[in-house]
Amino acid sequence: MNRSHRITFIVILIIVPVFLLALFYIDGDFWNKTSTQIWSFSRISSCKTHAQVQDFPKPNIGPFLNGNPPSCTCQNAPPANQFVSKDELEDLQKRRAEEYRQHQIRMGKQNDVLLLAPANTPLQYPIKGFRVTPMKKTLIPGLVLQTRMRTLYKVSLSVQKGVLSVMDVQEGEHVDGQNAINLTISSSSLHQLNDLLNRVTYTSTVYHIKTEDLAYFSFENHEVIFPIVIRRPSVPVLFDSGKDINSQVTILVKAFLRYKELHVLIKSIRQFYPNIKIIIADDSHNPEKVVGDNIEHYIMPPAQGWFAGRNLAVSQVTTKYFLWVDDDFVFLNETRIESFVKILEAVPDLDVVGGEVQGNRFFFRLQYEEGSSEEGGCIKRVRGTHTPLPGFNGCFYADGVVNYFMARTDAVRRVGFDPFLKRVAHTEFFLDGLGDLLVVTCKGLRIGHQKKSSTGKYGSYRHPPKSDSRNKISHHYFKNHLKCIRY
Amino acid sequence: MNRSHRITFIVILIIVPVFLLALFYIDGDFWNKTSTQIWSFSRISSCKTHAQVQDFPKPNIGPFLNGNPPSCTCQNAPPANQFVSKDELEDLQKRRAEEYRQHQIRMGKQNDVLLLAPANTPLQYPIKGFRVTPMKKTLIPGLVLQTRMRTLYKVSLSVQKGVLSVMDVQEGEHVDGQNAINLTISSSSLHQLNDLLNRVTYTSTVYHIKTEDLAYFSFENHEVIFPIVIRRPSVPVLFDSGKDINSQVTILVKAFLRYKELHVLIKSIRQFYPNIKIIIADDSHNPEKVVGDNIEHYIMPPAQGWFAGRNLAVSQVTTKYFLWVDDDFVFLNETRIESFVKILEAVPDLDVVGGEVQGNRFFFRLQYEEGSSEEGGCIKRVRGTHTPLPGFNGCFYADGVVNYFMARTDAVRRVGFDPFLKRVAHTEFFLDGLGDLLVVTCKGLRIGHQKKSSTGKYGSYRHPPKSDSRNKISHHYFKNHLKCIRY
Repeated sequence: MNRSHRITFIVILIIVPVFLLALFYIDGDFWNKTSTQIWSFSRISSCKTHAQVQDFPKPNIGPFLNGNPPSCTCQNAPPANQFVSKDELEDLQKRRAEEYRQHQIRMGKQNDVLLLAPANTPLQYPIKGFRVTPMKKTLIPGLVLQTRMRTLYKVSLSVQKGVLSVMDVQEGEHVDGQNAINLTISSSSLHQLNDLLNRVTYTSTVYHIKTEDLAYFSFENHEVIFPIVIRRPSVPVLFDSGKDINSQVTILVKAFLRYKELHVLIKSIRQFYPNIKIIIADDSHNPEKVVGDNIEHYIMPPAQGWFAGRNLAVSQVTTKYFLWVDDDFVFLNETRIESFVKILEAVPDLDVVGGEVQGNRFFFRLQYEEGSSEEGGCIKRVRGTHTPLPGFNGCFYADGVVNYFMARTDAVRRVGFDPFLKRVAHTEFFLDGLGDLLVVTCKGLRIGHQKKSSTGKYGSYRHPPKSDSRNKISHHYFKNHLKCIRY
Repeated sequence: MNRSHRITFIVILIIVPVFLLALFYIDGDFWNKTSTQIWSFSRISSCKTHAQVQDFPKPNIGPFLNGNPPSCTCQNAPPANQFVSKDELEDLQKRRAEEYRQHQIRMGKQNDVLLLAPANTPLQYPIKGFRVTPMKKTLIPGLVLQTRMRTLYKVSLSVQKGVLSVMDVQEGEHVDGQNAINLTISSSSLHQLNDLLNRVTYTSTVYHIKTEDLAYFSFENHEVIFPIVIRRPSVPVLFDSGKDINSQVTILVKAFLRYKELHVLIKSIRQFYPNIKIIIADDSHNPEKVVGDNIEHYIMPPAQGWFAGRNLAVSQVTTKYFLWVDDDFVFLNETRIESFVKILEAVPDLDVVGGEVQGNRFFFRLQYEEGSSEEGGCIKRVRGTHTPLPGFNGCFYADGVVNYFMARTDAVRRVGFDPFLKRVAHTEFFLDGLGDLLVVTCKGLRIGHQKKSSTGKYGSYRHPPKSDSRNKISHHYFKNHLKCIRY
């Protein structure tokens, strides 16, 4: 074969492979590959090794602990710890830190981590909605390996608060670590491996009614992490709201000294609602009997206070809803409490619906910043509402409403009225309920207010000394883990 | 060039490409590929198209609604609806169905879906721990596209309950659908695209304090779904447990007629705990004054009943813990309530610690099956405990304990004692608290029981007529959405 032939021959030897290689790189990757990458291409061709390629670093997918929030500030509000007496402050701060530590544990903050699903892993797995009952063996749904052919496939799973196993393993199926925290499954057939993954179960070994575990699922150099929610199922608690307003609502009143006003209120209620149950919590010094059909009168030790009375009244309710009224309110011709029920029944998520007293709706929002775990949060009460309640003209979401409101009995019991607060207190209930109670304020749900005629004695309680508000702030400094409060 | 040369030439033309192709299939996939797949190999070479290959079907990743659970059975227990009077049953069932529907909405069952992370997608995204405050713009963490080179990269995101946007978009950055439910980002540079993904924010537009949204994130034919948790942050509620037992614990008693026993109890308490607060809820017909330092006596309307009294007492507590005792118990030399506090302080997750009355610990487990939404659940009380409480010899997790227990005030308030239950009632509290209260029973925490000497009148209340238990079961049929109950 002559020289020209030899050249043609060599040229072909060079051109053909280059031409063919170009085909595989039609999307342009060829031009930014190094020769070593070209020759390792057969490995790149499977997704498994995507993560091995330099420009796809193995991602850090967590768990990342959500760290301590930054310190917060409320302008023009003195630090709450100023209201604690100097000599007590150090001890109090130590106790508050310990109670807060316990609170974080109870709230499951240790499970409050950020997890990411990494790109380009050959693993499929559940990321939400996989819940198990404590100590009960449960199949893990959705575990799949999808990769290109191998001579051997091998995946591993590990957990902390339970054990793993594969159900009814047959001879010839390779499973290591049955009923242990680390499980390894291998097979020469991808189909068989996925069949085994289909039968993987989790059983929690540490009894707890509300906790979480993390499962680590890996194949070769790929690892994913997914959450396992451990929950003891709870029994529903429903109220039979019966057929009429009397089986749906109880009216609650806190009485103190002002019996004249109380009787005016009761008379006005009976005018429109002759049979509805009225619960009266009374902490007067010399309680007078208040009697009548469907009136329950509870006598408290003298001057137990405002929130103790509210909490007592709520504790005795057997209806789905209760209506809160002050002892010096008065029902008017336009006072129709059925409207509250209509709204609450139409929007089951709602917990509290506020009306208006003598035209005053008094609603507010609470601006809350968590703050650092050492200093505590910052809270500020501002006038205003959130968005409108869809479908109910004149109703708006808010964080707090006036003293005339209807609420879901069970929801309010969960929050409660802090019996420590004896006199001026109202916002404090909505502060404790922030994030727990869904509140709206509505126009046109009216009740009247009797003329002020408070006896001297009542007045002395109604208008407490400065020391009271000092104590109150130092109480909130501890109880609500606050750095500052601003009303 | 002669014949033999031509042959060599052709042979080379055939062998070289085949040899080269074989290289790319070194892992054997070549032998199970069809020629059409071979020619489409340049596309297979990128992970993006993995899902296009026949043996990698596009997975169904949810959301899958967790369906209606199957019907349940409790052997030897008559259906609870048999205890409802025939003529009421139909109405009652309708009302129960409606209350249950509302309950499911309140529990967020509509968000209770199963989501899977599909294998081999080029998308990275958050699967857990991404929480936003309602109506507040928040960066979505961890969004990344990892794929091989394209001439153009384009990803889309969509949500339902909020809007998406990319922060400070510069000229030349291509973003469609700012502040809308559908966002599309495109770029000719993968680096720029990921830089834009790094700035994607979510803002919920429907105000709600506890709800969820789902985000759909897609690239070419890949789609993933991840949850967005919408939560209004709540303010901690802490108790200052002070320095001694008196600032940590309040003792609660329900009194009815048996004043002689009550005074014996109080005397025995004062012997060991001279200053601890005692709260007495009294629904006797002719209440006698019970006075003393740190004794609070509450007078209820006559015969309001057992759970109404318990609920009243709990509503008045200002300490972190309370101790429940019956009016005919008696403190013994070995009665040391500090031991309860020690356990509760060491394990913050605990809510209730039960002791033993005259050597009787009376503990039980509740076997609960949810059952279908139409019929309701099945519950069975059986003697027994769960696992031991680590670190406390003789303490075991249980679902219910004896009438002598210490509990976290806030936890028990959340569950409450149903005032409907007037007489024989105890298990019912633990039933309502199932899944909410973490309960243990401990050996050696002793209290005594006074000799039985119940007056005839008391006995008539203590041992109620059959009709009571009929009403009770029909009450639970509705309230706890039960198909059957077995004690």
